[in-house]
Amino acid sequence: MYAVIMAGGQGTRFWPRSRRKRPKQLLDIVGSESMIRQTVDRLFPFVNPEDVYVVTGMEHVEELIGHIPDVSPENIIAEPVGRNTAPCIGLAAMRLKKRDPEGLMAVLPADHVILDKGGFLETLRSACEVAKSGDYIITLGMRPDRPETGYGYIKKGPVVREGTVPDLRTERSGVVESGLSPTRFEAYHVERFVEKPNKETADGYVKSGAYLWNAGMFVFKVSTILKAIERYMPDLYIGLLRLEPALGTEEQERALNDVYGELPSVSIDYGVMEKADNVLVIPSTFGWNDVGSWTAIDDLLPRDEHGVVAQAEHISIDTKDCIVYSPKKLVATIGVSNLIVVETEDALLICDKSRAQDVKKVVEILEKNGKDNYL
Amino acid sequence: MYAVIMAGGQGTRFWPRSRRKRPKQLLDIVGSESMIRQTVDRLFPFVNPEDVYVVTGMEHVEELIGHIPDVSPENIIAEPVGRNTAPCIGLAAMRLKKRDPEGLMAVLPADHVILDKGGFLETLRSACEVAKSGDYIITLGMRPDRPETGYGYIKKGPVVREGTVPDLRTERSGVVESGLSPTRFEAYHVERFVEKPNKETADGYVKSGAYLWNAGMFVFKVSTILKAIERYMPDLYIGLLRLEPALGTEEQERALNDVYGELPSVSIDYGVMEKADNVLVIPSTFGWNDVGSWTAIDDLLPRDEHGVVAQAEHISIDTKDCIVYSPKKLVATIGVSNLIVVETEDALLICDKSRAQDVKKVVEILEKNGKDNYL
Repeated sequence: MYAVIMAGGQGTRFWPRSRRKRPKQLLDIVGSESMIRQTVDRLFPFVNPEDVYVVTGMEHVEELIGHIPDVSPENIIAEPVGRNTAPCIGLAAMRLKKRDPEGLMAVLPADHVILDKGGFLETLRSACEVAKSGDYIITLGMRPDRPETGYGYIKKGPVVREGTVPDLRTERSGVVESGLSPTRFEAYHVERFVEKPNKETADGYVKSGAYLWNAGMFVFKVSTILKAIERYMPDLYIGLLRLEPALGTEEQERALNDVYGELPSVSIDYGVMEKADNVLVIPSTFGWNDVGSWTAIDDLLPRDEHGVVAQAEHISIDTKDCIVYSPKKLVATIGVSNLIVVETEDALLICDKSRAQDVKKVVEILEKNGKDNYL
Repeated sequence: MYAVIMAGGQGTRFWPRSRRKRPKQLLDIVGSESMIRQTVDRLFPFVNPEDVYVVTGMEHVEELIGHIPDVSPENIIAEPVGRNTAPCIGLAAMRLKKRDPEGLMAVLPADHVILDKGGFLETLRSACEVAKSGDYIITLGMRPDRPETGYGYIKKGPVVREGTVPDLRTERSGVVESGLSPTRFEAYHVERFVEKPNKETADGYVKSGAYLWNAGMFVFKVSTILKAIERYMPDLYIGLLRLEPALGTEEQERALNDVYGELPSVSIDYGVMEKADNVLVIPSTFGWNDVGSWTAIDDLLPRDEHGVVAQAEHISIDTKDCIVYSPKKLVATIGVSNLIVVETEDALLICDKSRAQDVKKVVEILEKNGKDNYL
């Protein structure tokens, strides 16, 4: 079992904390460690450090190594430019093909939160069981607990595979301890992927019980995903073949510089998942959050009785439902509600919660105006 | 003509800019110079620098002298503790009595804005004319241009005195230049002072034409105000008599330390103006603003087409009617309105405009919690 961690994003919605040199996955948005560190840690002991791969932007390699020194630097694959998830996954698959062409790979984002590590590993091992058993692309589908409009959804069809995996400790030790029961799983045929819905549609999805959140986490054989890319994204596949000889050699960087920028910038969802007919989904519940914008903080950090989440010395007068992040400066708020307040060394953001998605617009304006020091 | 500038306030409503060591009158809230500097400057050439007196808190004397080096340090009277305006004015009057007992004194707050200096001086000279002519306490009443609920009002009665003052340049040069016409004034008997009204009442006041804003600026003979204090505030008068021998001598500081803290802490409005029957008001229009809270900025600084006043590098996305003060840090606001945002070296304030008066509550909380570094 190999893990491929996609650490290529910028997380501009977390400006002014996220910066070009400090993308979201390198920040400790939730918890005391960076998101990439937490992502690696939660794989142990199921995946060994030498089997963890990370794909990231060239400009972040050095700092990334500092966060995860236990992952071999050779396993950190540097993209010269970001080309969305399909080339990223294809590249990792092609790299793994040289080591273990029938190996299983789990593809995981570097910047999501998972509160229940045990539940996550059980689902990952269930997905492995299914992926081993055939030519399947497995997605982890999160059981929705609210009509979230910020996520894409997956509609599940009939059950294709079901079974159990033993408790991880039992499996490792070979001894069944009391209280450690095997986990039951069901893998469903994916009927379709749907984009972020409006509130009404999301309500219907949740009530129907047939829809799951698309968490962007996948498990498949290396050979399975490469076959799918060959079939559904032949241009990408040709590019990957051009890269193949250089991968894992001293030529890798040069080859990526030559080829990678020309690959189609397409998401794996759009390029493969929505087209392939061998996609299964395993419904899961392990406290997942994609930490997509500052409002995610509301679900992840403790709120006071007025709905205020403060990481700051905070004087709160008639303040409701606010997020206040200010590690160095006293903040006083009076008579305000539904605000996101983020203060950093050189910039201050004040944003209505309903507009959390638009934080990236600030970054766009800064780019347009050549204010690189704030990027 | 002597000017007595009352510079004893803290201006806690301007926290976090105003601090114990930097009260409002020492800040450049509007314009590039401090309010005390502007207050002194607008008196020239009508009042000579050697005839300007300033009453301020002991702890601010040193910095104050730095702002107004042209005012003689002997004319700066240090209060050991703040005791509201009646003792402050009484103290200044008693000090002037030794120099010129029948002299005229104008009492002016140090921390107000006056946009039309010419109009202000014309009114001041009109008030002098009336004050010279009898035993009158003259207040300057501002003609209201809106139903402001943040000011006290003065109801005027019948006209008591009227006349003209020549243009100041004409008076000085003795030559009547064309285009410089004398200013007509009318001084009305004050029927009553009224506290800050509610919106409906204020509406009625403005429509009636009989009400003026109480700007807290007064002109009278030294002997007149001392007589009024003797009559309406005998306790204060006895205290002032105890101070009298020491004033202007080396004993002044010791005497103030002994006596001043025991004087009644009462405003001149409550202690004298509301009781005396020789109070007149001169209606005036010279762009006055008491700069009572952050919302005053709205009337004093240019707003953009969305009603935003920004003293900051400001990225404004769907932002309306906000005041943004941040001299050092980029501020981005998204989808917010009616906010006051003030960022300083060590503190950040975010306040709904309707709650601008409650900024002082932050200071109270800081005091209670012993957070002296933020005071």
